[in-house]
This record gives sequence, C-alpha cells and structure tokens, in this order.
Amino acid sequence: MIALGELAKQIGAQLNGDAEFQVAGINTLSKASSSELAFIARPEFLEQASQSSAGVLMLAPAMAEQASFRGHTLLIDDPYLGYARASQVFDAFFNHRPGSVDPSASIASGVEIPADTTIGANVVVAEGAVVGQGCKIGPGCYLGAGSVLGDGTLLHANVTIYHGVSVGENCVIHSGTVVGSDGFGFAPSEAGWQKIHQLGGVRIGARVEIGANTAIDRGAIGDTVISDGVIIDNLVHIAHNVFIGVNTAIAGCCGFAGSTKVGANCTFAGQVGVTGHIEITDNCHFLGKAMVTNSVTEPGTYGSGVPMQPVKKWRRNMVRFSQLDDLSRLVNKLAKKIGEK
Amino acid sequence: MIALGELAKQIGAQLNGDAEFQVAGINTLSKASSSELAFIARPEFLEQASQSSAGVLMLAPAMAEQASFRGHTLLIDDPYLGYARASQVFDAFFNHRPGSVDPSASIASGVEIPADTTIGANVVVAEGAVVGQGCKIGPGCYLGAGSVLGDGTLLHANVTIYHGVSVGENCVIHSGTVVGSDGFGFAPSEAGWQKIHQLGGVRIGARVEIGANTAIDRGAIGDTVISDGVIIDNLVHIAHNVFIGVNTAIAGCCGFAGSTKVGANCTFAGQVGVTGHIEITDNCHFLGKAMVTNSVTEPGTYGSGVPMQPVKKWRRNMVRFSQLDDLSRLVNKLAKKIGEK
Amino acid sequence: MIALGELAKQIGAQLNGDAEFQVAGINTLSKASSSELAFIARPEFLEQASQSSAGVLMLAPAMAEQASFRGHTLLIDDPYLGYARASQVFDAFFNHRPGSVDPSASIASGVEIPADTTIGANVVVAEGAVVGQGCKIGPGCYLGAGSVLGDGTLLHANVTIYHGVSVGENCVIHSGTVVGSDGFGFAPSEAGWQKIHQLGGVRIGARVEIGANTAIDRGAIGDTVISDGVIIDNLVHIAHNVFIGVNTAIAGCCGFAGSTKVGANCTFAGQVGVTGHIEITDNCHFLGKAMVTNSVTEPGTYGSGVPMQPVKKWRRNMVRFSQLDDLSRLVNKLAKKIGEK
Repeated sequence: MIALGELAKQIGAQLNGDAEFQVAGINTLSKASSSELAFIARPEFLEQASQSSAGVLMLAPAMAEQASFRGHTLLIDDPYLGYARASQVFDAFFNHRPGSVDPSASIASGVEIPADTTIGANVVVAEGAVVGQGCKIGPGCYLGAGSVLGDGTLLHANVTIYHGVSVGENCVIHSGTVVGSDGFGFAPSEAGWQKIHQLGGVRIGARVEIGANTAIDRGAIGDTVISDGVIIDNLVHIAHNVFIGVNTAIAGCCGFAGSTKVGANCTFAGQVGVTGHIEITDNCHFLGKAMVTNSVTEPGTYGSGVPMQPVKKWRRNMVRFSQLDDLSRLVNKLAKKIGEK
Repeated sequence: MIALGELAKQIGAQLNGDAEFQVAGINTLSKASSSELAFIARPEFLEQASQSSAGVLMLAPAMAEQASFRGHTLLIDDPYLGYARASQVFDAFFNHRPGSVDPSASIASGVEIPADTTIGANVVVAEGAVVGQGCKIGPGCYLGAGSVLGDGTLLHANVTIYHGVSVGENCVIHSGTVVGSDGFGFAPSEAGWQKIHQLGGVRIGARVEIGANTAIDRGAIGDTVISDGVIIDNLVHIAHNVFIGVNTAIAGCCGFAGSTKVGANCTFAGQVGVTGHIEITDNCHFLGKAMVTNSVTEPGTYGSGVPMQPVKKWRRNMVRFSQLDDLSRLVNKLAKKIGEK
Repeated sequence: MIALGELAKQIGAQLNGDAEFQVAGINTLSKASSSELAFIARPEFLEQASQSSAGVLMLAPAMAEQASFRGHTLLIDDPYLGYARASQVFDAFFNHRPGSVDPSASIASGVEIPADTTIGANVVVAEGAVVGQGCKIGPGCYLGAGSVLGDGTLLHANVTIYHGVSVGENCVIHSGTVVGSDGFGFAPSEAGWQKIHQLGGVRIGARVEIGANTAIDRGAIGDTVISDGVIIDNLVHIAHNVFIGVNTAIAGCCGFAGSTKVGANCTFAGQVGVTGHIEITDNCHFLGKAMVTNSVTEPGTYGSGVPMQPVKKWRRNMVRFSQLDDLSRLVNKLAKKIGEK
C-alpha cells in the first residue's frame, strides 16, 4: 500500500485526486479493482478506461481531456514509462533488502561484505572478490576469485560468476545465468582439438539486466564487454570477445559468435544468430530468427527467413527454392528470347 | 526384478506365459536378454521379434497371431503405451523416495515438510512456501517465498523456483530449469531502458514435465500459465504472460515471446520461434525451426525454412532469393507479353 | 611468470633469444607489452609484427626469415597450436589444484575422494559415485548415484550430473550444464502424455569439453554417447540416444533430436538444428542455422537459410517465396510455349 500522493511524487506524475488514497497495486484496465492503478498509453483504450473499475488511472494530459473516468488520475507524458516506474514500488521482492549474511555462506577470508548487502544460503564468494554496497546475492550463487559486483547489484538464486569478471552498479542477473565461462577456442592438431585457455575476462557495465540461463563467455585475450544499460533476455549465448554497445536490447535465444562488435541502441528479436568477427553499427534492428552473416553499416531494420505455411504448400515451395538458380537462368533465357532483356 | 504377472497387472496387459517369471528390465528387440522385456509396435518388426533373445515380448493381440516368438508374451492394444507404463517400474531413481530432510537444507521457519517428502542437501525453501506430500526436491534447489509445490512433484537437482510460483501435482522439473524469472519488460526513456517490474507469477498445472535448463518467466501483470499435462523439453524459453493449453508438447530450444496464447494438444518440434501477442488454436503442429509470426486459426501442420544443400548450390539459391521479387515481376511481364496472363 | 626457455620446451618451439627472459603473459600483436608473448599465423601480419612492442614473437620458421622483429622469437610450424599450448601455462585457474574437500560438501558414505582431488563448497556426491584422481569439482556441483568422473576431469561451479552417467578422463564441463536429464519421451494416451521413463545413461569419452548451460539427456534404453575429443559450446541441446563421433565440434545453441548418429570430425556452426533418427557421415560441416532434416552420406559443407535483407525488400521476397511453386509452374508453361523446354 502506498499513498497516491507519494506514488505520484515517486514516478513524476501530476495528481488529480486524493493524495491520501491508498493504492494496493497495478493491474490491467479490465481487471483492476477499486484499490488498484491502471494506465492507458493509446487513445483506442479510452472507451475501455471509462468502464474500468480501477481506483486510479494514469494517462497523458492530452488524453485526459477526452477520458470520462470516475476515479483519481495521474497525468504523465509517457504513461508506459510511468507504469515502469510504478512497477518498482510494488515489487516486494526487489524492495526486500534487509542486509544479512546467511551462516551457510562460504565467504573467502579477506573479502568484506558491506553491512547493507544480503548474502543468501550456500553462496560461495572466492578469494579476492569484491562485493559492493546494497548488493543482494541469492542462495546458491558463486562469485569467482577476484570478481567484482558493483553497488546495488542483484544476483538471483543460482547465478554463476567465474573469476576475473566485473559487474557494474545496479545490475540484475537472473537465475541459472553463467558469466565468464571459457570461450569456445580450440586449435586443431594431429591429436585432436587443443584447448586455447581463455585468459581474458568479462566486463559488464552499469544498469545491465541479464535474464535466466544466459551464458556469457570470458575473452580469449582481452575481455568480453557488455556496455552500460544493455538488457539481455533468457537463454542468450554471447561468445568470447564480443562487444555489445550501450542500451542495446537482446531478446531470448539469440546467439553471438566470437569477436563480433555490436553498436549502441540496437535491438535483436528472439532467436537471431550473429556470426563472428563482424561489426554492426548503432541503431540496427533485427527481426526474429534473422541470420546475420555480414557486417551491417547502415542503421535500419533487417529480417530474414521465409514465412510459415501449411506443410504441403511449404514442402512444394521448399523444393522450388532448391532449384531457384536454375529457374532464374531459365527465366533470363526466356526473357532474352522474346526480347525483354 | 518384478514378477511377470505383477508387471502385466501394473501395465494393463494380458499375460501368455509364466506369472512367476522374473523380469530384469526393458531393452530393444536386438539387445534384450532372456530376462528382459522387449516390445513391437509395428508389423515390420515381426521378423526381428522371431529372432530376439528377449524373455518377454509385448505386442498387440492382432499381431500376436502372426508372431513366432518362443518366450512369454504380454498382449496390449497399444504396446508403445505399455512400454511407457513398464518403464516406470524399472526407474530406480523415480521410485526411490525415502522421505527425509537433509540437515544442510535451509527451510524457512513456519514451512512444514510432510513426512513422506524428501529434501536434498543445500535446498533452500523461503518463507511462506508450501511443499506437498510425497514431493522430492533434489540437492541445490531453491523454492522462493510463497511458492507452492503440489503433491508428488519432483524437482531434480539445482532447479530454481522464484517467489509467487505455483506448481501442480505430479510434475517433474529437470535440473537447471528456472521458473519465475522476470519477463523481459522495459520502457524506453531518455535515461535508457526503465525496468518494468514483473508483478505477476507463474501457474503450472498438474502432470507437467519440464526438461533441463528451460526458463519460464513470471507475468508482468497477471500470470504466465502452463496448463495441465503440458510437456516441455530442454532449453525452451517461455516469456511473460504466455499461456500454454493442456497437453501441448514443446520440443527443445523453442522460444515463445510475450503474451502469446497457445491452444491445447499442439506440438512444436525443435527450435520453433513464436512471436508475441498472437493466438494459436488447438491441434496445431509446427515442424522444426518454424517461424510463427502470425496467429494460427486453422488446426493443421505448418512448416517454414528452406532445405539444407551443399554450400555452393545453396549460396547461388540464396542470392536468387534476394532477387525473387524482381524475378517474379519479370516472369509476369513475360507472361503478359506472350499472352499467358 | 615463466622463463622463455622453459616455455619453449613446454610448447615444443625453437628459441631464438634469451632462455632466462621472463614472460608475463600472452597478448595480441597490437597490445602486447615488452614482457608479453604475441604470435602471428599468417604472413599478412608481418608488417604489424615489426611494429609490435611484444617481448617475444612466436611464428613459423618460414615466416621468420621475412620478419623484422627486434625481440626474442619462438619458432614453431603451427603458431596457432603453439598459442593454444602456451595459453595453458598462463591459466591460473586451471593450474590451481591444491587437493582438498570443502567441509560443506556432502559426500555419500563409501565414496572415496583421492588426495589430489579438490571438492568445492556445497558439492553433493551421491552413493556409489566414483571420482577420479586429480579431479576438480567446483562449488554447488551435483554428482548423481553411481556416476563416474575420470581422472583429471574439471567440473566448474554448479554443474549437474545425474545418476548413471560416466565422464571420461581430462574432460572440462562448464557451469550450469546438465548431463543425464530425462530424454523427451512420452507415449500418447487417452489420459494425456504417458511418461516413458528414461532407463539408459550418458557415456562421455576422454578429453571432451562442454560449455555453459548445455543439456545432454540420458538414453531411453541404452546410452547417449559423446565420443573422445568432442567439443561442445554453450546452450546446446543433445537429446536421448544421440551419438556424437570423435573430435566433432558443436558451436553454441545447436539442437540434436533423439537417436541421431553424427560421425567423426564434423563441425556444426551456431544454431544448427538436426532432426531425429538420421545419420550424418564423418567430415560433414554445417553452416550457422542449417536445418538438417535428412541423413547426410557425402562429406562436405552444407548450408540453409536465406540472407538477411532490409525489412521492406525481405518482406516482398518472403511473399514471393510463398508463391514460388506457382511461379515455377508459370515459367515452365511459358518455356513450353516458346519452345524452350
């Protein structure tokens, strides 16, 4: 519960209504109860808003004039951003940071844990690691030798950070994620693959969020780098010596091969695959399953793949694809013959 | 070892042979020994069955008449289903449930562990969690605050269940899987991505099985839902507020983007990608690597992608694909010119 | 620090220079300091080598004649392989193996831990497991009942090995990886999916390296097999009863469906999908995102997929692909009409 006036202040919205009104949570327009906050970001929901049972409605000032909502309102230019800010207020998990070290944790001698940092059960912190203030390390996490967690960083349960990794301030890393595993580097030899030991580390900037079961490899020589403000979803693979520029967003199941350099403010939809040793400039956007095999020098939106179809039709088209070069040659021949080329 | 008569009873088969015969295990037709059970589900294996050393053969009554097998037989209409049932009998791991709590487990005060539930080493159960009867929680698992495990549910080692997740009865979740991690929700702002705290949970029905290293995100507002009887393989990504209908089967490496609703009795082969905010009706089947970018309203089988080819041929066809629109225009022009369109 | 003479001996290179010179590490040509080793494997870097500040340069004897490098040199026929060997010398993590058992580890009674094996905090070793000499098991790992780790094998933190798994000598398995989870086997029944209990195990050969958050399922009947010298990257899915031949290399995010048999010395680039029950012969190479739906009997390189394009152009070509069969028929009709077929 939070007083509406206080909530307005925290999210930077203008209040039309009772500052003492108690808000219990956030919900959708159709499900919100009389003690909950809902929001609309687009005019097509104005009609639905007028029928909502929500106690509070957040919307843009321009839209407020057209709205016929009975309850309290919060006015903010970007209601979606307002919703994002309000969501933090109601996240009990995130706000619960008592500052304690579980007695079952194994903290290497010489490592200092700040008083306001919380360490869960069975956490292992190796020698030389540095843990910032106000961190929260969930049960079962491992922080390797000499690795660094910046102030305010949250590791959910069962995160693995190898040695020689630095994570910046106010990052969130979800369960099952591994940072600093060896890059996939091997030299061929007569006796089979000879491992190239991965001597670099991983540097993660500030305000980075990484989803569950993602894997980020350490560099072979020099570091893998995730810049400030990057957001990464679940089950993403980032190979050794990749560089991801600031504020780039990477959705689930993407894979980045080694030494590729990605610019700032890019977005990758799910299951995109990016080949190694290429460079992608700032402000590039890739649709789901895109196959990125060359450097991209022009900002813009890119896609690849072929559309899903009923299986019989798709099978026929697939066979035709495998003959596409022959078909094109035939067409060119025909065109020549009848004087069209 | 189990007596053949008892085995027949447990799997619902009719016995032709010695009820006291001791069965040691299950094996393939070609490898089964004289103390093992083998099965055939299709007539083309009748010849092989006649030469098998298996002690017991399970098959359909209709096929039994044509079989010339020397040993004992078990008759059942669906021998593949019979095999599935028999497999449980011989799964020593699954049947081993002594009911004990490892002294190294951290169980929050107030959480009751039923006498027939087994808790492994280093398990952490947070405050307010509810653990059902006959559960088995493997070493290193984490069960978050207020989360619920239904009766008879099995978590293998190192599973992570966040707070606010409910798992139904008789589920199996494999190692490394994460349930309840934050959905990938962020609002753009001038200061970069603003996290949208994920205030919903995850509801998993009864008899759900989830493979290894899968990640299922909690809802932004409201829950992510996995219905009764769903089966999910390894390394699958299920985003926030996805709904999966009853008995749907999802193979390895699939990804589902946010708020998509999948019907009942669907099947997804490996590496299928499903975009967000769409609806897939019941009884839809997707072949491997399918790219599902639109709602599917007709039950049926769907595919996408192009066939693998030797690299030179494929490269030529790929180039032609990138000119396909031009080619099509040229063909239409030719067709017009010679009076075919 | 290592004396250059000693380093030369360990990697099998011929030294031109001071055997007592102390080498501090490895770096790239452009970044190496006067105490570091750099290498060149191709003549196009000869110019850059002449300007490098590196203290030591490793290169092939044939190239050494053309090089104008001021420092010490190491001559070796395959400098990339030399680099791989040298990298091990400087891997402090790998070389740190003191031999101790953390008091928080749970070792089942009867399991013997060799004196030179290291067991980290919160490791759980179940009954009947066998741990080889000189192994290192990182914090939070689980080794299931009856499973075997060969001599010199390294499990990084939070690896999960189920029961009935054998891992050969000198393997490396990275964090979050799961070996021995149940294969995705279910029989349809009127009551929904009936689980087929997975009664086989997993056999991993010697000198296998497996990346982070990979999942390798146990066999349904009989074992899943990973042969000697195989290397597997992060987030790879290997289903039940798959067989991978010696020295095959599998990059990140690949998926292999059940019972497929892969030959020796194959390579799979990222995100390749391989269907079940097929056979791939030795020396096959698959480009990124290849969709392998049939057995491959000819060694060679294979690819699939269509190239990424700016979104407008791609959308047009995609629509044309869905009409490709019709287009081909029209072309054939035209060809007939004008006497070209």
